[in-house]
Amino acid sequence: MFPTYDVIVVGAGHAGNEAAAAAANLGSKTLLITMNMQVIGQMSCNPAMGGVAKGQIVREIDAMGGLSGIVTDESMIQFRMLNRSKGPAMWSPRSQNDRMLFAQKWRLALEKIQNLDFWQDMVVGLIIKDKRVVGVKTSMGHEINARAVVITSGTFLNGIIHIGEKQFGGGRAGERAATGITEQLVELGFEAGRMKTGTPPRVDGRTLDYSKMTEQPGDEPPGKFSFMDTTPLTKQKSCWITYTNPKVHEVLATGFDKSPMFTGRIKGLGPRYCPSIEDKINRFAERERHQIFVEPEGWETVEIYVNGFSTSLPEDVQYKALRLIPGFENAKMFRPGYAIEYDFFPPTQLKSTLETKLIENLFFAGQINGTTGYEEAACQGLIAGINAHLKVHDLPPFTLKRSEAYIGVLIDDLINKGTEEPYRMFTSRAEYRLLLRQDNADWRLTEKAYKLGLASEERYRRFMDKKEKIEQGIRLIKEAQVNPEEINGYLESIGSATIKEKIRVERLLKRPDLNIYQLIERIPHLETLRRYNQEVCEEIEIMIKYEDYIEREEKMAQKMMALEDYRIPSNFNYDLVKALSAEGREKLKRLRPETLGQASRISGVSPSDVSILMVYLGK
Amino acid sequence: MFPTYDVIVVGAGHAGNEAAAAAANLGSKTLLITMNMQVIGQMSCNPAMGGVAKGQIVREIDAMGGLSGIVTDESMIQFRMLNRSKGPAMWSPRSQNDRMLFAQKWRLALEKIQNLDFWQDMVVGLIIKDKRVVGVKTSMGHEINARAVVITSGTFLNGIIHIGEKQFGGGRAGERAATGITEQLVELGFEAGRMKTGTPPRVDGRTLDYSKMTEQPGDEPPGKFSFMDTTPLTKQKSCWITYTNPKVHEVLATGFDKSPMFTGRIKGLGPRYCPSIEDKINRFAERERHQIFVEPEGWETVEIYVNGFSTSLPEDVQYKALRLIPGFENAKMFRPGYAIEYDFFPPTQLKSTLETKLIENLFFAGQINGTTGYEEAACQGLIAGINAHLKVHDLPPFTLKRSEAYIGVLIDDLINKGTEEPYRMFTSRAEYRLLLRQDNADWRLTEKAYKLGLASEERYRRFMDKKEKIEQGIRLIKEAQVNPEEINGYLESIGSATIKEKIRVERLLKRPDLNIYQLIERIPHLETLRRYNQEVCEEIEIMIKYEDYIEREEKMAQKMMALEDYRIPSNFNYDLVKALSAEGREKLKRLRPETLGQASRISGVSPSDVSILMVYLGK
Repeated sequence: MFPTYDVIVVGAGHAGNEAAAAAANLGSKTLLITMNMQVIGQMSCNPAMGGVAKGQIVREIDAMGGLSGIVTDESMIQFRMLNRSKGPAMWSPRSQNDRMLFAQKWRLALEKIQNLDFWQDMVVGLIIKDKRVVGVKTSMGHEINARAVVITSGTFLNGIIHIGEKQFGGGRAGERAATGITEQLVELGFEAGRMKTGTPPRVDGRTLDYSKMTEQPGDEPPGKFSFMDTTPLTKQKSCWITYTNPKVHEVLATGFDKSPMFTGRIKGLGPRYCPSIEDKINRFAERERHQIFVEPEGWETVEIYVNGFSTSLPEDVQYKALRLIPGFENAKMFRPGYAIEYDFFPPTQLKSTLETKLIENLFFAGQINGTTGYEEAACQGLIAGINAHLKVHDLPPFTLKRSEAYIGVLIDDLINKGTEEPYRMFTSRAEYRLLLRQDNADWRLTEKAYKLGLASEERYRRFMDKKEKIEQGIRLIKEAQVNPEEINGYLESIGSATIKEKIRVERLLKRPDLNIYQLIERIPHLETLRRYNQEVCEEIEIMIKYEDYIEREEKMAQKMMALEDYRIPSNFNYDLVKALSAEGREKLKRLRPETLGQASRISGVSPSDVSILMVYLGK
Repeated sequence: MFPTYDVIVVGAGHAGNEAAAAAANLGSKTLLITMNMQVIGQMSCNPAMGGVAKGQIVREIDAMGGLSGIVTDESMIQFRMLNRSKGPAMWSPRSQNDRMLFAQKWRLALEKIQNLDFWQDMVVGLIIKDKRVVGVKTSMGHEINARAVVITSGTFLNGIIHIGEKQFGGGRAGERAATGITEQLVELGFEAGRMKTGTPPRVDGRTLDYSKMTEQPGDEPPGKFSFMDTTPLTKQKSCWITYTNPKVHEVLATGFDKSPMFTGRIKGLGPRYCPSIEDKINRFAERERHQIFVEPEGWETVEIYVNGFSTSLPEDVQYKALRLIPGFENAKMFRPGYAIEYDFFPPTQLKSTLETKLIENLFFAGQINGTTGYEEAACQGLIAGINAHLKVHDLPPFTLKRSEAYIGVLIDDLINKGTEEPYRMFTSRAEYRLLLRQDNADWRLTEKAYKLGLASEERYRRFMDKKEKIEQGIRLIKEAQVNPEEINGYLESIGSATIKEKIRVERLLKRPDLNIYQLIERIPHLETLRRYNQEVCEEIEIMIKYEDYIEREEKMAQKMMALEDYRIPSNFNYDLVKALSAEGREKLKRLRPETLGQASRISGVSPSDVSILMVYLGK
């Protein structure tokens, strides 16, 4: 009944969808298996994509030819570029999305892919031969053969939902858990663990008093995620901001003795950086208030997502506390918040392709690897899907370096350091933040993806056209010079220092108080640039303004890359290297990195420790 | 945490949604409880609404101020008026719908209703005091109080899904079953039973060869369901027709020994008039082919519903057989067909308001009453919701007579005759088909619903305006006369008999070969009618053309209504009435109807039997 597939992807969330799309688009005969075809591409938690560091990942996925950016653009109800006031390394696109539309667009996008089949069923086991996966077993009793399998089980593997003292089996509220795979993998020698995550209550927007909150509108004009020609929004929906207060905290505290978080009923570790509200008031008892983002769930629905109020306290406590938040006095709940525990497999059991070390051709992506977040899941799916395809076609693997993409940082972190709690991406995890900007994701990745066969001809053409313009723009600016009489009047008018002699325009553009448009408008040599769109001009400006910093990071990256060549013998005696810092030595002895590169990424190992080791190993 | 509600509705399918909307719109503080708010308003089976007799029900629901018609119009991808070639009693609107859009529109429509709250949870029990329901218990452990409860459990109550020899608990593929209520109701003295229904496989439309099928396009121009100003379609999607063949049947037969239908594993009775394909080839072994309707699941999705191929045979048999159908040679399956067994409560335990006889203020609607079909469910929901509201506000009940609506026929059938198999509406179930037309549902019901408070001011105004035009139009036609020299030329040209003397226009309109437009165009006295829209003109034409038949049915209906006054003593000795037909006597002795009205509706009891009884009882 089923052919032998090249790749089977288990699960149709952010990770599974990207994996299936990538494998199929690369030409693998791919099957996507999901427990319920009605709920493909769900946003299980907040109705938003992107954000700090995460937005960069979405841009990278898009630059590679993944679908998350396009789907996000097509279902967006608000767009904001976060951190605009900071340097471009920190700029982070974020959107609110229509939850239903997002799922719909994902499904339609997947349906358009040749080579991609769908099957509604639950995978309950793997077929393994000689330490190699050759298919899956389903709850309907099918054995479906495949040359590679990507598992993206999300929160479904042995999922248990907690609300107060109550527990239910389930992969999401209202949906069944999946079972069977963990037990088999453990038997095969895998180490498994439990993690937990949580979600806030959903309320009836008709019962909120927005006059007591602060409006948070979208950017005008709104941006978007995809480098392709998705349509920007012409109207947007606002979010609203309100705050908890000591009374809210007091009421929440009354539920602590019933909280599965505090009574030890939940064994899995939750995401430290996306804590539940009870966690926040417990850990930061001194804080009088916490911010609550009131996020609409879609264009038309009245349902509201209470971002910042994730909780697994008993519903009546959730409800009482909610109603003490300004604007929520009459709030009605549609669904309570809850915590969910699920199985994961410490990702140190993976290769950099996301293939497992134990079982050949078996790939893991998303929450199964101990990460949290749609974006983190999606990019793992992309890499797993690509490498599943490459592996079964005997092609060399595809990986990204830490200096090339947040995706590279994420996977390098996961497979080398593992994670004790749900891993979330931050800009601080990247050493080369200025290289890994949201604006240049295409510059970093589209050519690679095109060579791979994943970025389409059209995407490549669009990018090359943009690249050409940027290069021409940079050339023009680097050539251009300006006389004092041409520009001083303007400089004076905006309070910028005047120039004394003819100087290169480049130098003006490097001033923090001047932008590219001010120069384009006034310097005839730059006339050509007036026809360029904002995307191109911004890129030119960033590349010139931050040129020196970027170059410095590039050099560092090259140096660091060289560190990967320094292998540290597994029995290396760190005590012999007297000059090491005490903390550095202790960490190195404990974690025993394989290369100097890995050593350099251990927190507590200082750059000078690395230099000392390099000298020592160089001997 | 919860207020005391007037009405709690359990389940958010066709029945639950209409019940919740009706109760809330009438002013009851209403709570709709669903296991998963992401899947409100699902079309669990085919992506279509209406059809013969069912389309009339949707029109009736709409005329009453229910929402099914509007939601259907808003999510329609094709419209056809079935049976146009037959008399107007048979005309039946039918639509194909975008499955996702239908659910979305339902949810948004419900969200717009004041007084309607939502809660995501599973109801596991009822709170009963002194034989009266006063609330529900949920799986989260809540006790929510209410003055009335409407249960619309669909296929979820102890649902078991069957595919070949496999069984899974579930309310729909991929969704959990609900438990708890049946056991409690049985303990309370209710009789419960099992029914089954089934659904066909869904396939990948990209793998079908439409050149081997017959296209079935929508009507041009397309009609719609609602009497309100929903927008008619400007483009439509076609369905396709193909056929099974002896080879298909042969392959299907190879699975019979594993069919839960034939091995006795399924205990519930299925819908005789919506049989599975294995049922069809088993019961009609002589038929060489069965029609298959290839129905798109939405505007954009490639998923296809294989209408006519409902089956619970093993998937591999489904698959092999499917591929032998012309156009399906390369078909890929997305999800297999399956059968589902679920609990129902024989509807003879209900009053005509759909309140249970045993427990006060407890109402049942939809499949729990042994019916099948979205439309049958929706109209029960409407009636249950209305009566739940009326009951808790001490207002007189609202019911519809068999001569007033298919809804009346349905409920009268259910509560008096019960049903052995899933009850589906047919025009043949109605005695007064010519009264219960799709075109006059508003004429029959909108004024009643307006008085009730359910039909809106706007709906009433629209109807009154239409009614006035129709009455004026009828008046004008009845007044108008026409001379031979004015019309004979035209009559001759179309081959209709010429007239010899001045006659009333009405007489011409009663000719089967003349329609109202031909007359309006040619008779100056009817000039006003040229400004009337199609809806009004068609209604005028029907009311004049079929005047005599309609009057006859109206008289019969009145006579029949009188029959309800003739009570038959419960110990009546039918053997004393010699003139009864043998079959009539036998049925009457067995079923022991309470009134002559009920007696008249027993199949096998002839009109003359009824007359004879009337004479006898009149003594």
